[in-house]
Amino acid sequence: MAACTGPGAGLAGPAPQGEKGPVRRVKAVIAYEGTDLLGFQRQAQGPTVQGALEEVLAEIAGHGVRVLGAGRTDAGVHAEGQVVAFDLAWRHSLDDLRNALNALLPRSIAVLEVAWAPEGFHPRFDAVSRTYRYRVFNRPVRSPFEERFAWHVPEPLDVERMNLAAALFVGVHDFASFGQPTQGEATVREVYRARWERRGDLVLFEVEANGFLRGMVRSLVGTLVDVGRGRLVPAEVERILQARDRSAASTTAPPQGLFLVHVRYP
Amino acid sequence: MAACTGPGAGLAGPAPQGEKGPVRRVKAVIAYEGTDLLGFQRQAQGPTVQGALEEVLAEIAGHGVRVLGAGRTDAGVHAEGQVVAFDLAWRHSLDDLRNALNALLPRSIAVLEVAWAPEGFHPRFDAVSRTYRYRVFNRPVRSPFEERFAWHVPEPLDVERMNLAAALFVGVHDFASFGQPTQGEATVREVYRARWERRGDLVLFEVEANGFLRGMVRSLVGTLVDVGRGRLVPAEVERILQARDRSAASTTAPPQGLFLVHVRYP
Repeated sequence: MAACTGPGAGLAGPAPQGEKGPVRRVKAVIAYEGTDLLGFQRQAQGPTVQGALEEVLAEIAGHGVRVLGAGRTDAGVHAEGQVVAFDLAWRHSLDDLRNALNALLPRSIAVLEVAWAPEGFHPRFDAVSRTYRYRVFNRPVRSPFEERFAWHVPEPLDVERMNLAAALFVGVHDFASFGQPTQGEATVREVYRARWERRGDLVLFEVEANGFLRGMVRSLVGTLVDVGRGRLVPAEVERILQARDRSAASTTAPPQGLFLVHVRYP
Repeated sequence: MAACTGPGAGLAGPAPQGEKGPVRRVKAVIAYEGTDLLGFQRQAQGPTVQGALEEVLAEIAGHGVRVLGAGRTDAGVHAEGQVVAFDLAWRHSLDDLRNALNALLPRSIAVLEVAWAPEGFHPRFDAVSRTYRYRVFNRPVRSPFEERFAWHVPEPLDVERMNLAAALFVGVHDFASFGQPTQGEATVREVYRARWERRGDLVLFEVEANGFLRGMVRSLVGTLVDVGRGRLVPAEVERILQARDRSAASTTAPPQGLFLVHVRYP
Protein backbone atom coordinates (compact mmCIF):
# COMPACT_ATOMS: atom_id res chain seq x y z
CA MET A 1 0.00 0.00 0.00
CA ALA A 2 2.92 2.35 0.69
CA ALA A 3 3.21 3.24 -2.99
CA CYS A 4 -0.32 4.59 -2.93
CA THR A 5 -0.07 6.82 0.11
CA GLY A 6 2.50 9.39 -1.04
CA PRO A 7 1.28 12.60 -2.63
CA GLY A 8 2.91 11.68 -5.92
CA ALA A 9 1.35 8.22 -6.10
CA GLY A 10 -0.18 7.43 -9.46
CA LEU A 11 -2.04 4.44 -10.74
CA ALA A 12 -0.85 3.54 -14.18
CA GLY A 13 2.17 3.91 -16.38
CA PRO A 14 1.81 5.18 -19.94
CA ALA A 15 -1.67 4.28 -21.15
CA PRO A 16 -1.52 1.05 -23.17
CA GLN A 17 -3.71 0.87 -26.26
CA GLY A 18 -5.65 -2.34 -26.84
CA GLU A 19 -8.87 -3.58 -28.33
CA LYS A 20 -10.63 -2.27 -25.23
CA GLY A 21 -9.55 1.28 -26.05
CA PRO A 22 -7.14 3.53 -24.20
CA VAL A 23 -6.70 3.35 -20.45
CA ARG A 24 -8.30 6.39 -18.80
CA ARG A 25 -8.77 7.49 -15.24
CA VAL A 26 -12.28 7.09 -13.84
CA LYS A 27 -13.73 8.99 -10.88
CA ALA A 28 -16.60 7.24 -9.13
CA VAL A 29 -18.89 8.30 -6.30
CA ILE A 30 -19.86 5.30 -4.21
CA ALA A 31 -22.09 4.45 -1.25
CA TYR A 32 -21.68 1.59 1.18
CA GLU A 33 -23.37 0.10 4.22
CA GLY A 34 -20.34 -0.57 6.38
CA THR A 35 -21.81 -2.90 9.02
CA ASP A 36 -20.35 -6.08 7.54
CA LEU A 37 -17.25 -4.47 6.02
CA LEU A 38 -13.83 -4.09 7.65
CA GLY A 39 -13.63 -0.50 6.44
CA PHE A 40 -12.43 1.07 3.21
CA GLN A 41 -8.85 -0.13 3.02
CA ARG A 42 -8.00 -3.59 1.65
CA GLN A 43 -7.24 -6.14 4.36
CA ALA A 44 -6.36 -9.81 4.29
CA GLN A 45 -8.76 -10.61 7.17
CA GLY A 46 -12.05 -9.87 5.46
CA PRO A 47 -14.23 -7.84 3.11
CA THR A 48 -13.41 -4.19 2.51
CA VAL A 49 -14.64 -1.57 0.03
CA GLN A 50 -11.29 -1.27 -1.73
CA GLY A 51 -10.94 -5.05 -1.84
CA ALA A 52 -14.42 -5.54 -3.35
CA LEU A 53 -13.89 -2.81 -5.96
CA GLU A 54 -10.46 -4.12 -6.96
CA GLU A 55 -11.82 -7.64 -7.29
CA VAL A 56 -14.69 -6.54 -9.55
CA LEU A 57 -12.44 -4.28 -11.65
CA ALA A 58 -9.93 -7.11 -12.11
CA GLU A 59 -12.81 -9.20 -13.45
CA ILE A 60 -13.81 -6.44 -15.87
CA ALA A 61 -10.27 -5.49 -16.93
CA GLY A 62 -8.74 -8.94 -16.98
CA HIS A 63 -5.82 -7.72 -14.87
CA GLY A 64 -5.20 -6.11 -11.50
CA VAL A 65 -6.58 -2.57 -11.07
CA ARG A 66 -5.60 -0.39 -8.12
CA VAL A 67 -8.36 1.70 -6.49
CA LEU A 68 -7.62 4.98 -4.69
CA GLY A 69 -10.09 6.42 -2.17
CA ALA A 70 -10.71 9.89 -0.75
CA GLY A 71 -11.02 8.74 2.85
CA ARG A 72 -10.19 5.58 4.77
CA THR A 73 -13.35 4.91 6.70
CA ASP A 74 -13.15 2.43 9.61
CA ALA A 75 -14.96 -0.88 10.03
CA GLY A 76 -18.70 -0.32 10.47
CA VAL A 77 -18.62 3.24 9.08
CA HIS A 78 -20.90 4.03 6.13
CA ALA A 79 -20.54 6.26 3.07
CA GLU A 80 -23.10 8.08 0.95
CA GLY A 81 -20.50 9.93 -1.11
CA GLN A 82 -17.07 8.32 -0.94
CA VAL A 83 -14.96 9.15 -4.02
CA VAL A 84 -12.63 6.64 -5.64
CA ALA A 85 -10.47 6.62 -8.77
CA PHE A 86 -9.00 3.90 -10.94
CA ASP A 87 -7.56 3.46 -14.43
CA LEU A 88 -9.51 1.38 -16.93
CA ALA A 89 -9.80 0.70 -20.62
CA TRP A 90 -13.54 0.86 -21.38
CA ARG A 91 -15.13 1.26 -24.80
CA HIS A 92 -18.76 1.41 -23.72
CA SER A 93 -20.74 4.19 -22.07
CA LEU A 94 -20.17 5.35 -18.51
CA ASP A 95 -23.73 4.24 -17.65
CA ASP A 96 -22.77 0.76 -18.82
CA LEU A 97 -19.69 0.85 -16.61
CA ARG A 98 -21.77 1.92 -13.61
CA ASN A 99 -24.29 -0.84 -14.29
CA ALA A 100 -21.58 -3.48 -14.75
CA LEU A 101 -19.96 -2.51 -11.45
CA ASN A 102 -23.29 -2.55 -9.61
CA ALA A 103 -24.18 -5.93 -11.05
CA LEU A 104 -20.91 -7.45 -9.80
CA LEU A 105 -20.41 -5.66 -6.47
CA PRO A 106 -21.82 -7.03 -3.20
CA ARG A 107 -25.19 -5.49 -2.26
CA SER A 108 -23.55 -3.51 0.56
CA ILE A 109 -21.66 -1.37 -1.99
CA ALA A 110 -23.14 0.69 -4.86
CA VAL A 111 -21.60 2.93 -7.50
CA LEU A 112 -23.76 6.07 -7.75
CA GLU A 113 -21.88 8.00 -10.45
CA VAL A 114 -18.91 7.47 -12.76
CA ALA A 115 -17.11 10.10 -14.82
CA TRP A 116 -13.88 10.41 -16.77
CA ALA A 117 -11.36 12.23 -14.60
CA PRO A 118 -8.40 14.36 -15.61
CA GLU A 119 -5.19 12.34 -15.88
CA GLY A 120 -3.52 12.18 -12.49
CA PHE A 121 -6.74 12.96 -10.58
CA HIS A 122 -6.26 11.76 -7.01
CA PRO A 123 -9.43 11.49 -4.88
CA ARG A 124 -7.52 12.02 -1.65
CA PHE A 125 -4.90 14.64 -2.43
CA ASP A 126 -7.12 16.70 -4.74
CA ALA A 127 -9.98 16.93 -2.24
CA VAL A 128 -10.48 20.32 -0.59
CA SER A 129 -12.91 19.12 2.07
CA ARG A 130 -14.75 16.12 3.46
CA THR A 131 -18.16 16.21 5.13
CA TYR A 132 -19.21 13.62 7.67
CA ARG A 133 -22.60 13.13 9.28
CA TYR A 134 -23.08 11.41 12.61
CA ARG A 135 -26.51 10.07 13.64
CA VAL A 136 -27.47 9.80 17.31
CA PHE A 137 -30.76 8.08 18.12
CA ASN A 138 -31.95 9.87 21.23
CA ARG A 139 -34.90 8.40 23.09
CA PRO A 140 -35.19 6.01 26.03
CA VAL A 141 -36.16 2.95 23.95
CA ARG A 142 -33.85 1.60 21.24
CA SER A 143 -35.11 1.04 17.68
CA PRO A 144 -34.33 -2.14 15.72
CA PHE A 145 -34.18 0.03 12.55
CA GLU A 146 -31.39 2.23 13.92
CA GLU A 147 -29.10 -0.55 15.18
CA ARG A 148 -26.89 -0.33 12.08
CA PHE A 149 -27.21 3.38 11.45
CA ALA A 150 -27.06 5.32 14.71
CA TRP A 151 -25.63 5.49 18.23
CA HIS A 152 -28.45 4.93 20.71
CA VAL A 153 -28.12 7.47 23.54
CA PRO A 154 -31.07 7.06 25.93
CA GLU A 155 -30.38 10.13 28.13
CA PRO A 156 -31.91 13.48 27.05
CA LEU A 157 -29.43 15.58 25.05
CA ASP A 158 -29.12 19.36 25.32
CA VAL A 159 -28.49 20.20 21.66
CA GLU A 160 -27.97 23.91 22.35
CA ARG A 161 -25.06 23.16 24.70
CA MET A 162 -23.65 20.66 22.20
CA ASN A 163 -23.61 23.43 19.59
CA LEU A 164 -21.89 25.84 21.99
CA ALA A 165 -19.12 23.27 22.41
CA ALA A 166 -19.06 22.30 18.72
CA ALA A 167 -18.38 25.93 17.80
CA LEU A 168 -15.04 25.63 19.65
CA PHE A 169 -13.83 23.23 16.95
CA VAL A 170 -14.53 25.55 14.00
CA GLY A 171 -11.39 27.11 12.56
CA VAL A 172 -7.75 26.04 12.44
CA HIS A 173 -6.82 23.95 15.49
CA ASP A 174 -4.40 21.28 16.58
CA PHE A 175 -6.71 18.27 17.02
CA ALA A 176 -4.07 15.95 18.56
CA SER A 177 -6.45 15.26 21.47
CA PHE A 178 -9.04 13.86 19.09
CA GLY A 179 -7.16 11.54 16.75
CA GLN A 180 -3.96 10.26 15.19
CA PRO A 181 -2.58 11.47 11.87
CA THR A 182 -2.88 8.81 9.17
CA GLN A 183 0.58 9.77 7.90
CA GLY A 184 3.24 12.29 8.88
CA GLU A 185 3.09 14.26 12.11
CA ALA A 186 0.70 17.11 11.42
CA THR A 187 -2.38 17.20 13.65
CA VAL A 188 -3.58 20.67 12.63
CA ARG A 189 -6.80 20.70 10.59
CA GLU A 190 -9.26 23.39 9.56
CA VAL A 191 -12.89 22.72 10.45
CA TYR A 192 -15.26 24.75 8.26
CA ARG A 193 -18.49 23.89 10.08
CA ALA A 194 -19.62 21.68 12.94
CA ARG A 195 -23.27 21.75 13.89
CA TRP A 196 -25.92 19.61 15.60
CA GLU A 197 -29.58 19.52 14.66
CA ARG A 198 -32.49 17.65 16.24
CA ARG A 199 -35.03 15.96 13.96
CA GLY A 200 -37.51 14.09 16.12
CA ASP A 201 -35.68 11.27 17.90
CA LEU A 202 -32.57 11.82 15.78
CA VAL A 203 -29.80 14.22 16.73
CA LEU A 204 -27.60 14.78 13.69
CA PHE A 205 -24.09 16.21 13.53
CA GLU A 206 -22.54 17.55 10.34
CA VAL A 207 -18.89 18.47 10.23
CA GLU A 208 -16.84 19.66 7.27
CA ALA A 209 -13.06 20.07 7.35
CA ASN A 210 -10.10 20.14 5.00
CA GLY A 211 -9.17 16.79 6.52
CA PHE A 212 -9.68 14.61 9.57
CA LEU A 213 -7.32 12.69 11.81
CA ARG A 214 -7.95 8.99 12.25
CA GLY A 215 -10.85 8.55 14.71
CA MET A 216 -11.41 12.33 14.89
CA VAL A 217 -15.12 12.58 14.03
CA ARG A 218 -16.07 9.82 16.44
CA SER A 219 -13.93 11.42 19.16
CA LEU A 220 -15.47 14.87 18.59
CA VAL A 221 -18.96 13.32 18.64
CA GLY A 222 -18.31 11.35 21.83
CA THR A 223 -17.04 14.46 23.57
CA LEU A 224 -19.96 16.60 22.39
CA VAL A 225 -22.51 13.95 23.40
CA ASP A 226 -20.91 13.98 26.86
CA VAL A 227 -21.60 17.72 26.91
CA GLY A 228 -25.19 17.09 25.77
CA ARG A 229 -25.86 14.60 28.56
CA GLY A 230 -24.21 16.74 31.22
CA ARG A 231 -20.99 14.79 31.79
CA LEU A 232 -18.83 17.65 30.49
CA VAL A 233 -19.22 21.43 30.36
CA PRO A 234 -18.09 23.36 27.27
CA ALA A 235 -15.11 24.82 29.18
CA GLU A 236 -13.76 21.28 29.68
CA VAL A 237 -14.00 20.70 25.93
CA GLU A 238 -11.79 23.75 25.43
CA ARG A 239 -9.25 22.28 27.89
CA ILE A 240 -9.30 18.93 26.06
CA LEU A 241 -8.66 20.68 22.74
CA GLN A 242 -5.78 22.71 24.22
CA ALA A 243 -4.19 19.65 25.86
CA ARG A 244 -3.15 18.30 22.42
CA ASP A 245 -3.00 14.89 24.02
CA ARG A 246 -5.03 11.91 22.76
CA SER A 247 -5.56 10.63 26.30
CA ALA A 248 -7.32 13.89 27.26
CA ALA A 249 -10.45 13.19 25.15
CA SER A 250 -13.55 11.62 26.66
CA THR A 251 -15.91 9.12 24.99
CA THR A 252 -15.43 7.84 21.41
CA ALA A 253 -18.71 7.39 19.57
CA PRO A 254 -19.32 3.95 18.00
CA PRO A 255 -18.76 3.51 14.23
CA GLN A 256 -22.29 2.67 13.09
CA GLY A 257 -23.56 6.28 13.38
CA LEU A 258 -20.88 7.69 11.07
CA PHE A 259 -21.40 8.49 7.36
CA LEU A 260 -18.93 10.01 4.91
CA VAL A 261 -21.44 12.13 3.00
CA HIS A 262 -19.45 14.32 0.63
CA VAL A 263 -15.95 14.97 -0.70
CA ARG A 264 -15.46 18.36 -2.32
CA TYR A 265 -13.03 19.16 -5.15
CA PRO A 266 -11.96 22.56 -6.47
CA MET B 1 -50.80 -23.43 17.99
CA ALA B 2 -54.37 -24.51 17.19
CA ALA B 3 -55.57 -23.56 20.66
CA CYS B 4 -54.48 -20.00 20.03
CA THR B 5 -56.19 -19.43 16.73
CA GLY B 6 -59.87 -19.76 17.64
CA PRO B 7 -61.82 -16.63 18.56
CA GLY B 8 -62.32 -17.90 22.10
CA ALA B 9 -58.65 -18.65 22.70
CA GLY B 10 -57.37 -17.38 26.01
CA LEU B 11 -54.00 -17.40 27.62
CA ALA B 12 -54.28 -18.30 31.25
CA GLY B 13 -56.62 -20.09 33.57
CA PRO B 14 -57.70 -18.46 36.85
CA ALA B 15 -55.00 -15.99 37.89
CA PRO B 16 -52.68 -17.62 40.42
CA GLN B 17 -51.49 -15.45 43.32
CA GLY B 18 -47.85 -15.65 44.28
CA GLU B 19 -45.04 -13.56 45.67
CA LYS B 20 -44.77 -11.92 42.25
CA GLY B 21 -48.32 -10.58 42.54
CA PRO B 22 -51.39 -11.48 40.55
CA VAL B 23 -51.17 -12.56 36.92
CA ARG B 24 -52.48 -9.82 34.63
CA ARG B 25 -52.77 -9.45 30.88
CA VAL B 26 -50.21 -7.14 29.28
CA LYS B 27 -50.60 -5.40 25.91
CA ALA B 28 -47.31 -4.45 24.23
CA VAL B 29 -46.53 -2.52 21.07
CA ILE B 30 -43.37 -3.87 19.47
CA ALA B 31 -41.11 -3.11 16.52
CA TYR B 32 -38.86 -5.51 14.67
CA GLU B 33 -36.39 -5.59 11.82
CA GLY B 34 -37.49 -8.76 10.09
CA THR B 35 -34.53 -9.42 7.78
CA ASP B 36 -33.02 -12.15 9.93
CA LEU B 37 -36.28 -13.43 11.39
CA LEU B 38 -38.51 -16.20 10.03
CA GLY B 39 -41.58 -14.05 10.60
CA PHE B 40 -43.84 -13.52 13.61
CA GLN B 41 -45.05 -17.03 14.32
CA ARG B 42 -42.94 -19.48 16.36
CA GLN B 43 -41.13 -22.05 14.22
CA ALA B 44 -38.77 -24.87 15.01
CA GLN B 45 -36.41 -23.95 12.13
CA GLY B 46 -35.17 -20.59 13.36
CA PRO B 47 -35.68 -17.26 15.12
CA THR B 48 -39.14 -15.68 15.14
CA VAL B 49 -40.70 -12.75 16.99
CA GLN B 50 -43.10 -14.92 18.96
CA GLY B 51 -40.32 -17.38 19.78
CA ALA B 52 -37.97 -14.65 21.03
CA LEU B 53 -40.69 -13.01 23.16
CA GLU B 54 -41.80 -16.31 24.68
CA GLU B 55 -38.20 -17.23 25.49
CA VAL B 56 -37.55 -13.92 27.26
CA LEU B 57 -40.89 -14.02 29.11
CA ALA B 58 -40.18 -17.56 30.29
CA GLU B 59 -36.91 -16.28 31.72
CA ILE B 60 -38.72 -13.43 33.52
CA ALA B 61 -41.70 -15.51 34.71
CA GLY B 62 -39.87 -18.73 35.51
CA HIS B 63 -42.41 -20.71 33.47
CA GLY B 64 -43.78 -20.85 29.94
CA VAL B 65 -45.72 -17.79 28.77
CA ARG B 66 -47.78 -17.82 25.58
CA VAL B 67 -47.64 -14.69 23.38
CA LEU B 68 -50.52 -13.67 21.09
CA GLY B 69 -49.96 -11.31 18.14
CA ALA B 70 -52.23 -9.06 16.08
CA GLY B 71 -50.79 -10.11 12.72
CA ARG B 72 -48.62 -12.96 11.48
CA THR B 73 -46.02 -11.18 9.40
CA ASP B 74 -43.92 -13.30 7.03
CA ALA B 75 -40.16 -13.85 7.04
CA GLY B 76 -38.32 -10.64 6.17
CA VAL B 77 -41.31 -8.39 6.91
CA HIS B 78 -40.85 -5.60 9.47
CA ALA B 79 -43.09 -4.04 12.11
CA GLU B 80 -43.19 -0.58 13.63
CA GLY B 81 -46.39 -1.19 15.57
CA GLN B 82 -47.17 -4.89 15.98
CA VAL B 83 -49.36 -5.54 19.04
CA VAL B 84 -48.92 -8.55 21.28
CA ALA B 85 -50.47 -9.74 24.54
CA PHE B 86 -49.42 -12.12 27.28
CA ASP B 87 -50.21 -12.89 30.91
CA LEU B 88 -47.61 -12.11 33.55
CA ALA B 89 -47.21 -11.63 37.28
CA TRP B 90 -45.17 -8.44 37.67
CA ARG B 91 -44.80 -6.35 40.82
CA HIS B 92 -42.66 -3.54 39.39
CA SER B 93 -43.53 -0.64 37.10
CA LEU B 94 -44.48 -1.06 33.45
CA ASP B 95 -41.38 0.97 32.49
CA ASP B 96 -39.30 -1.61 34.35
CA LEU B 97 -41.03 -4.39 32.42
CA ARG B 98 -40.36 -2.66 29.09
CA ASN B 99 -36.71 -2.13 30.02
CA ALA B 100 -36.28 -5.74 31.20
CA LEU B 101 -37.75 -7.05 27.94
CA ASN B 102 -35.55 -4.75 25.83
CA ALA B 103 -32.46 -5.76 27.77
CA LEU B 104 -33.11 -9.45 27.11
CA LEU B 105 -34.54 -9.40 23.57
CA PRO B 106 -32.32 -9.65 20.47
CA ARG B 107 -31.43 -6.25 18.98
CA SER B 108 -33.75 -6.90 16.02
CA ILE B 109 -36.81 -6.71 18.32
CA ALA B 110 -37.80 -3.84 20.63
CA VAL B 111 -40.73 -3.29 22.95
CA LEU B 112 -41.96 0.30 22.45
CA GLU B 113 -44.86 0.41 24.94
CA VAL B 114 -46.42 -1.85 27.55
CA ALA B 115 -49.77 -1.38 29.26
CA TRP B 116 -52.13 -3.41 31.42
CA ALA B 117 -54.91 -4.73 29.21
CA PRO B 118 -58.47 -5.67 30.11
CA GLU B 119 -58.80 -9.34 30.99
CA GLY B 120 -59.39 -11.35 27.83
CA PHE B 121 -57.91 -8.69 25.53
CA HIS B 122 -56.94 -10.40 22.29
CA PRO B 123 -54.62 -8.42 19.97
CA ARG B 124 -55.91 -10.18 16.87
CA PHE B 125 -59.64 -10.60 17.42
CA ASP B 126 -60.15 -7.24 19.14
CA ALA B 127 -58.37 -5.28 16.38
CA VAL B 128 -60.63 -3.19 14.13
CA SER B 129 -57.98 -2.44 11.50
CA ARG B 130 -54.36 -2.97 10.49
CA THR B 131 -52.26 -0.50 8.54
CA TYR B 132 -49.33 -1.63 6.41
CA ARG B 133 -46.77 0.50 4.62
CA TYR B 134 -44.81 -0.72 1.61
CA ARG B 135 -41.59 1.05 0.54
CA VAL B 136 -40.48 1.00 -3.09
CA PHE B 137 -37.06 2.46 -3.89
CA ASN B 138 -37.48 3.91 -7.36
CA ARG B 139 -34.38 5.07 -9.18
CA PRO B 140 -32.03 3.38 -11.67
CA VAL B 141 -29.20 2.75 -9.18
CA ARG B 142 -29.76 0.60 -6.07
CA SER B 143 -28.88 1.89 -2.59
CA PRO B 144 -27.01 -0.22 -0.03
CA PHE B 145 -29.08 1.48 2.69
CA GLU B 146 -32.40 0.31 1.22
CA GLU B 147 -31.45 -3.34 0.68
CA ARG B 148 -33.23 -4.43 3.87
CA PHE B 149 -36.05 -1.91 3.80
CA ALA B 150 -37.39 -1.47 0.28
CA TRP B 151 -38.07 -3.13 -3.07
CA HIS B 152 -35.73 -1.66 -5.66
CA VAL B 153 -37.70 -0.93 -8.85
CA PRO B 154 -35.38 0.74 -11.38
CA GLU B 155 -38.03 1.59 -14.01
CA PRO B 156 -39.87 4.93 -13.69
CA LEU B 157 -43.21 4.55 -11.87
CA ASP B 158 -46.36 6.46 -12.77
CA VAL B 159 -47.73 7.09 -9.28
CA GLU B 160 -50.93 8.70 -10.57
CA ARG B 161 -51.89 5.56 -12.48
CA MET B 162 -50.97 3.42 -9.47
CA ASN B 163 -53.41 5.46 -7.39
CA LEU B 164 -56.16 5.08 -10.00
CA ALA B 165 -55.74 1.31 -9.73
CA ALA B 166 -55.34 1.34 -5.91
CA ALA B 167 -58.71 3.09 -5.61
CA LEU B 168 -60.31 -0.06 -7.07
CA PHE B 169 -59.39 -1.94 -3.89
CA VAL B 170 -61.06 0.48 -1.48
CA GLY B 171 -64.34 -0.84 -0.05
CA VAL B 172 -65.66 -4.34 0.58
CA HIS B 173 -64.30 -6.83 -1.95
CA ASP B 174 -63.54 -10.50 -2.32
CA PHE B 175 -59.73 -10.50 -2.44
CA ALA B 176 -59.33 -14.21 -3.30
CA SER B 177 -57.11 -13.25 -6.26
CA PHE B 178 -54.63 -11.57 -3.90
CA GLY B 179 -54.13 -14.00 -1.03
CA GLN B 180 -55.19 -17.01 1.01
CA PRO B 181 -57.28 -16.83 4.18
CA THR B 182 -55.20 -17.66 7.26
CA GLN B 183 -58.16 -19.61 8.65
CA GLY B 184 -61.67 -20.40 7.48
CA GLU B 185 -62.86 -19.74 3.97
CA ALA B 186 -63.76 -16.06 3.93
CA THR B 187 -61.79 -13.96 1.45
CA VAL B 188 -63.90 -10.80 1.72
CA ARG B 189 -62.17 -7.87 3.40
CA GLU B 190 -62.92 -4.17 3.73
CA VAL B 191 -60.12 -1.83 2.65
CA TYR B 192 -60.50 1.62 4.22
CA ARG B 193 -57.72 3.36 2.31
CA ALA B 194 -55.02 2.46 -0.22
CA ARG B 195 -52.80 5.25 -1.49
CA TRP B 196 -49.35 5.79 -3.02
CA GLU B 197 -47.15 8.82 -2.40
CA ARG B 198 -43.78 9.75 -3.89
CA ARG B 199 -41.10 11.19 -1.57
CA GLY B 200 -37.93 11.68 -3.59
CA ASP B 201 -36.65 8.26 -4.66
CA LEU B 202 -39.14 6.50 -2.40
CA VAL B 203 -42.63 5.53 -3.52
CA LEU B 204 -44.67 4.66 -0.43
CA PHE B 205 -47.93 2.73 -0.23
CA GLU B 206 -50.21 2.82 2.80
CA VAL B 207 -53.14 0.50 3.09
CA GLU B 208 -55.59 0.08 5.96
CA ALA B 209 -58.17 -2.69 6.15
CA ASN B 210 -60.23 -4.59 8.70
CA GLY B 211 -57.99 -7.55 7.88
CA PHE B 212 -55.68 -8.95 5.22
CA LEU B 213 -55.38 -12.33 3.58
CA ARG B 214 -52.04 -14.07 3.74
CA GLY B 215 -49.72 -12.44 1.16
CA MET B 216 -52.37 -9.84 0.27
CA VAL B 217 -50.42 -6.59 0.74
CA ARG B 218 -47.43 -7.89 -1.24
CA SER B 219 -49.74 -9.11 -3.99
CA LEU B 220 -51.62 -5.78 -4.17
CA VAL B 221 -48.28 -3.93 -4.26
CA GLY B 222 -46.81 -6.16 -6.98
CA THR B 223 -49.92 -5.68 -9.12
CA LEU B 224 -49.95 -1.89 -8.60
CA VAL B 225 -46.22 -1.59 -9.36
CA ASP B 226 -46.90 -3.46 -12.61
CA VAL B 227 -49.45 -0.74 -13.38
CA GLY B 228 -46.90 1.93 -12.48
CA ARG B 229 -44.26 0.54 -14.83
CA GLY B 230 -46.73 0.01 -17.66
CA ARG B 231 -47.06 -3.78 -17.59
CA LEU B 232 -50.75 -3.61 -16.64
CA VAL B 233 -53.53 -1.09 -17.20
CA PRO B 234 -56.01 -0.32 -14.39
CA ALA B 235 -58.79 -2.17 -16.26
CA GLU B 236 -56.76 -5.38 -16.03
CA VAL B 237 -56.49 -4.87 -12.27
CA GLU B 238 -60.27 -4.76 -12.11
CA ARG B 239 -60.43 -8.06 -14.05
CA ILE B 240 -57.90 -9.65 -11.66
CA LEU B 241 -59.98 -8.56 -8.65
CA GLN B 242 -63.18 -9.90 -10.20
CA ALA B 243 -61.55 -13.25 -11.12
CA ARG B 244 -61.42 -14.25 -7.40
CA ASP B 245 -58.66 -16.65 -8.36
CA ARG B 246 -55.18 -16.55 -6.79
CA SER B 247 -53.56 -17.50 -10.10
CA ALA B 248 -54.99 -14.38 -11.77
CA ALA B 249 -52.73 -11.93 -9.85
CA SER B 250 -49.48 -10.66 -11.33
CA THR B 251 -46.21 -9.93 -9.47
CA THR B 252 -45.81 -10.43 -5.70
CA ALA B 253 -43.64 -7.75 -4.10
CA PRO B 254 -40.68 -9.00 -2.01
CA PRO B 255 -41.00 -9.04 1.81
CA GLN B 256 -38.31 -6.50 2.76
CA GLY B 257 -40.39 -3.46 1.72
CA LEU B 258 -43.31 -4.35 3.99
CA PHE B 259 -43.95 -2.82 7.43
CA LEU B 260 -46.87 -3.46 9.78
CA VAL B 261 -47.22 0.09 11.07
CA HIS B 262 -50.35 0.22 13.17
CA VAL B 263 -53.09 -1.94 14.68
CA ARG B 264 -56.22 -0.07 15.71
CA TYR B 265 -58.56 -1.04 18.57
CA PRO B 266 -62.03 0.31 19.38
